[in-house]
Amino acid sequence: MTTLSNSRKVRIEWGDCDPAGIIFYPRYFEIFDASTAALFERALGLTKFEQLKRFDFAGYPLARTRAKFIRPTRFGDDVTVDSSIKFGRSSFEVEHRLSLNGAVCVECSETRVWVVRDSATGAIKSQPVPADVLAKFR
Amino acid sequence: MTTLSNSRKVRIEWGDCDPAGIIFYPRYFEIFDASTAALFERALGLTKFEQLKRFDFAGYPLARTRAKFIRPTRFGDDVTVDSSIKFGRSSFEVEHRLSLNGAVCVECSETRVWVVRDSATGAIKSQPVPADVLAKFR
Amino acid sequence: MTTLSNSRKVRIEWGDCDPAGIIFYPRYFEIFDASTAALFERALGLTKFEQLKRFDFAGYPLARTRAKFIRPTRFGDDVTVDSSIKFGRSSFEVEHRLSLNGAVCVECSETRVWVVRDSATGAIKSQPVPADVLAKFR
Amino acid sequence: MTTLSNSRKVRIEWGDCDPAGIIFYPRYFEIFDASTAALFERALGLTKFEQLKRFDFAGYPLARTRAKFIRPTRFGDDVTVDSSIKFGRSSFEVEHRLSLNGAVCVECSETRVWVVRDSATGAIKSQPVPADVLAKFR
Repeated sequence: MTTLSNSRKVRIEWGDCDPAGIIFYPRYFEIFDASTAALFERALGLTKFEQLKRFDFAGYPLARTRAKFIRPTRFGDDVTVDSSIKFGRSSFEVEHRLSLNGAVCVECSETRVWVVRDSATGAIKSQPVPADVLAKFR
Repeated sequence: MTTLSNSRKVRIEWGDCDPAGIIFYPRYFEIFDASTAALFERALGLTKFEQLKRFDFAGYPLARTRAKFIRPTRFGDDVTVDSSIKFGRSSFEVEHRLSLNGAVCVECSETRVWVVRDSATGAIKSQPVPADVLAKFR
Repeated sequence: MTTLSNSRKVRIEWGDCDPAGIIFYPRYFEIFDASTAALFERALGLTKFEQLKRFDFAGYPLARTRAKFIRPTRFGDDVTVDSSIKFGRSSFEVEHRLSLNGAVCVECSETRVWVVRDSATGAIKSQPVPADVLAKFR
Repeated sequence: MTTLSNSRKVRIEWGDCDPAGIIFYPRYFEIFDASTAALFERALGLTKFEQLKRFDFAGYPLARTRAKFIRPTRFGDDVTVDSSIKFGRSSFEVEHRLSLNGAVCVECSETRVWVVRDSATGAIKSQPVPADVLAKFR
């Protein structure tokens, strides 16, 4: 099993918030998607754009996500997102913990699948995560 | 236990989709949030704006959500969202099933909490769903 | 010069609105982008997804947009978007008027360019709008 | 006339981009709105949340915006947004220039209005920008 983690700061913006004055929760999933990309970027030393050119794959779409909202956040908050990953064969799990001043606000678990595009049909299909990708996470 | 369901059609737009040509998954949560609002609007005969004026409450923020992504959707798809609700005391569960031409694409379960704003502190706290709200769902 | 118009209804949702309780203005541009797509869909009888398969082009990106915000809208509002188009050679102008109960809330003018992808370099370049597309707008 | 400027870096994310692989243009307006807030935060030394508590006002909604899209940007791009402001009496103009590696990609001009909430009716109305706000921009 291979694990790696990453931490990043994100500013919650006015436009992320709803009429209750707190973040509109779908924005958290935008933050988590970017956090997963940041984790891969850190491990591989390539942006997602560069990854798609370098590796013959079509992304890592989400199969499942589960989130627990513990404390609200609002515009002006500078939150921390700690993300860690565990690889399976053709899928992997990412855990995100979003916190403000040390207090956990949201916990999220994602299951993602490594996919390639079938050259004949154009359809997307899962495939084992390449060994050279896994090696970078060690 | 009180249940009610609602069904609505949603067009997936170009701007909902990512460079893989399929919907960017946080958009599903925007759709589900609006679907929960539509369910309340149908039961209560009031938009969410009118609900907030009529009932002394501060909304029904999400405590948990879980989603399973089975088939991707893409721009131009007219999907159907079937939503049903089950009430507890101060919380409720909403199940959303998003499908395209009869095939299920996403399943989502939300746990939401009925909250009011404390008049003294301004803080949000959970409170039993009012009887006149529950009555409308019967 | 070729013109056509389209009208559609859009519900402003809770998640489209900001802590001031009114729509967060970037959401208007999402609405206008979908309104331009709806205008083409009406004229061509094809969704944008089908258009991209049927016509050898890469979309109609925005070159300029100008918007005037006259009255705010908020969640629960069912607004009307009236859109009309005027074609130039490789560009076209779309005018959107968003109104609520007959009162204009936003006026927007877009300049868009018809582009194709260069088969050699992959770069995007403008090209005259095809005659069979123009014919559908007459 | 009072002017001040600010510069900030923004990462364009996968979820900001559309099926053409480039940024979906309404995302630029989210970036510009946050850039205006950042400009005020820099001048006043307060986040927008703190500004709304400190000053008796209801925000600075947009009256007009005009944008010119010169070069596309895409996920993985770290763009620079340079913003400058000029105050009128109850309105102000913000110019945003978004660039990548020194090349201008988007130019945007906003007209915003300083508004307060009428204590009797709750309606929003424009009002001169307070002298202590203007002083901070000098």
